[in-house]
Amino acid sequence: MEFNQINMQTDDCDPDRPAHPRIFLTDEAGKSDRARAVDFPVSVVLPAGGTGERTGLQTPKQFCTFLGRPLISYTVQAFERVSWIQSIVVVVAKENMDLMTDIIQRFQHKKVRVVPGGSTRHRSICNGVLALGGEGEGETAAIDRPKVVIIHDAVRPFVEEDFLYKIAMAAKEQGAAGAIRPLVSTVIATTAEGYLDHSLERAKYRASEMPQGFTFDVIYQAYQRCTESDFEFGTECLHLALQYCGTNAKLIQGPPTLWKVTYKRDLAAAESIIKDTLSRSACIVTGGSAHAATLADALQKAVGALALELEVIPDLMGENSSYLLKEWNFIQVSVDSSCLSEVETLLRDLEAANRALLHPLVVIWVRLSSSDEPSISGREVEPSGIMELASEAKTQNILLYGIEIHQAKDTEQWERSVLKAAEITSALIRDRTPALVGQLLQA
Amino acid sequence: MEFNQINMQTDDCDPDRPAHPRIFLTDEAGKSDRARAVDFPVSVVLPAGGTGERTGLQTPKQFCTFLGRPLISYTVQAFERVSWIQSIVVVVAKENMDLMTDIIQRFQHKKVRVVPGGSTRHRSICNGVLALGGEGEGETAAIDRPKVVIIHDAVRPFVEEDFLYKIAMAAKEQGAAGAIRPLVSTVIATTAEGYLDHSLERAKYRASEMPQGFTFDVIYQAYQRCTESDFEFGTECLHLALQYCGTNAKLIQGPPTLWKVTYKRDLAAAESIIKDTLSRSACIVTGGSAHAATLADALQKAVGALALELEVIPDLMGENSSYLLKEWNFIQVSVDSSCLSEVETLLRDLEAANRALLHPLVVIWVRLSSSDEPSISGREVEPSGIMELASEAKTQNILLYGIEIHQAKDTEQWERSVLKAAEITSALIRDRTPALVGQLLQA
Repeated sequence: MEFNQINMQTDDCDPDRPAHPRIFLTDEAGKSDRARAVDFPVSVVLPAGGTGERTGLQTPKQFCTFLGRPLISYTVQAFERVSWIQSIVVVVAKENMDLMTDIIQRFQHKKVRVVPGGSTRHRSICNGVLALGGEGEGETAAIDRPKVVIIHDAVRPFVEEDFLYKIAMAAKEQGAAGAIRPLVSTVIATTAEGYLDHSLERAKYRASEMPQGFTFDVIYQAYQRCTESDFEFGTECLHLALQYCGTNAKLIQGPPTLWKVTYKRDLAAAESIIKDTLSRSACIVTGGSAHAATLADALQKAVGALALELEVIPDLMGENSSYLLKEWNFIQVSVDSSCLSEVETLLRDLEAANRALLHPLVVIWVRLSSSDEPSISGREVEPSGIMELASEAKTQNILLYGIEIHQAKDTEQWERSVLKAAEITSALIRDRTPALVGQLLQA
Repeated sequence: MEFNQINMQTDDCDPDRPAHPRIFLTDEAGKSDRARAVDFPVSVVLPAGGTGERTGLQTPKQFCTFLGRPLISYTVQAFERVSWIQSIVVVVAKENMDLMTDIIQRFQHKKVRVVPGGSTRHRSICNGVLALGGEGEGETAAIDRPKVVIIHDAVRPFVEEDFLYKIAMAAKEQGAAGAIRPLVSTVIATTAEGYLDHSLERAKYRASEMPQGFTFDVIYQAYQRCTESDFEFGTECLHLALQYCGTNAKLIQGPPTLWKVTYKRDLAAAESIIKDTLSRSACIVTGGSAHAATLADALQKAVGALALELEVIPDLMGENSSYLLKEWNFIQVSVDSSCLSEVETLLRDLEAANRALLHPLVVIWVRLSSSDEPSISGREVEPSGIMELASEAKTQNILLYGIEIHQAKDTEQWERSVLKAAEITSALIRDRTPALVGQLLQA
């Protein structure tokens, strides 16, 4: 029986991943030209006040790191790259204010302010709303007030611009709007003794998710009018808008990517989505040599089946320097077997472009040995050469690996080697294992 | 700022993983001596009739593979290893009968029968219940009938014996019992026009999950009495038991591990849980050499911080042969640098014990080079030696990797090398990357 046919890798439909990998792009490359922009001011409140007590994790989930970066930074980035969002207020517990400020500096976030949270979710959101232009700050405060406030969870990092647009537009028109999803499980009412009372008819109910949007006036008034009991025990902003402002929220079905990182298994899922998104493409730099270009073309063909998109370029000069700003991994092909200088140049260019700020960047040096015989001098010198270079690069968040491929006269053997090099390349880019940097792997 | 402190690896509480890694053990090793056994016959119905249409995946989720094995096989194994469960009926769509039969043969499942599903979930479950001893089969059928039937989803592979025990006991006492979980999101009722109608008070409601248990009589009668409309549109077995047999189900809060693989992100989460469970321990075989034992001890110390448990043994003879049956990975330490024969012997023993039937097994050959100088003869001969051996082993579902560690007189350098070897070992065991088998990595 052929089990490959039922491998999860073959699923071509992927409703659970962000449709637009650009969510992970740096500002320079992420400017979207196809998304619609709203023409009124929109700001964001990100409650991130959780201290992780409920789940028993040592670290609150919003501060758990993925490839070296805290989850909250991914969420901030998802909003920051939307041109029509003017500011983001992150609300954190007092004890995490310094940590959050450090995160903003380290990952060079703009548009972001940090304010201290309250003792409950509603108090924290209310603090965020007030920070966007509450009372007692005179007319300037009123001028800076956004038309629409989007409220989102710090632990839903995969929200996309298209959906934010829908929420912002509906909020402006209706006063309030919220994301919903179909229920995954049947919801049942229980008796006080722990027995089944009745089950709800699934079709009539939905799970209320985030983001939600409100006109500033609606959310501000709702918090002005609500009771201490609402602040203490309430969870649903849409409910406050309905109860205190008479605003019926428009409900919009969101994509599965809105899901909330809740359990530890969700950390693994989030990491996998992030890794997949970073592993889609690589740029092969040939250095202009015809020999290297032939190998690059062969690799490009061989990875076709591995869901990795490769582009071949001679160098990163002139127009090609734009590749430095894109979300690509890099493969340097060298035919001069003792020469690491090409890869050193590449590393310097990547560092200068600050390309590894948000994610570790994978660089693979593919060395073509020019004969069937192992090149003894090469093997003795370079394993330590690439290892040292890789140790330096790692301090800059760049993961450098080597692959040695032997030139073979036998076509079949050559094709096997190229395929193997392609498989190793694809695995290294996907796994991003720090422990393996500096290895010279044999294709 | 030190970001290690907020790495997800440091979470010491892990509510989302199976508490007992034995869920993954082979039958021989998995016999639990501490779990309580029920003293009445219990059988299981596993509806696995989904064709994946709803999620848009090419492969129904229950047949998606994890480390080469379909999800349904993990779920079957979770029940099969429970001594007091007498039989398992898997209900699959007619077009998947052959596939399911192949899976049972290939992974040597016992206790399992396959029956064809119906056009809806209730019809499929009903077919499964009838297969356990329905009408028209005379007295023998009645004698074989289980006292309690547990119904579970094929896509909830991490169910544990302790919880099955609770469900079985409650089902026997109350007639029906079901797993519940707290609601993750607020549930809201929507108007026909897509606006918020009201939100439910979260504390009064629960998500109904699986497994559920029923006495045979209750579930059999419920299906005898229910209507075509129930068969067509119903989803909740507990509801049928209440409506047609007057049986109020006992509701029992289950662990987060009961979660249902629903979205593609859940495939990544499931794979991560499976990999974590398989990566907890390794057995270092020293071959009896004192030199190798010293290295093994150093490795054991160095991996302490890496959440990998290592045990050092001289060989797999006598009492130590029991390690062949346990869920361990293997590390063969060799000091004779040209000698792959120890690892060959280990591979033969593992193949003879059929240890890689259910999961790919990781074997790492750690070779100690006896001088500071690279051993040129070794380097020339062995990269191809271990590559060939690894290719053969891969066909047996064994992933063989090599690590070369150089004996250094300088203590600091030696400790660095040992730490690096430990990090590489830990990463290889965790990642299980097939593309890297046969590599001789440098520590």
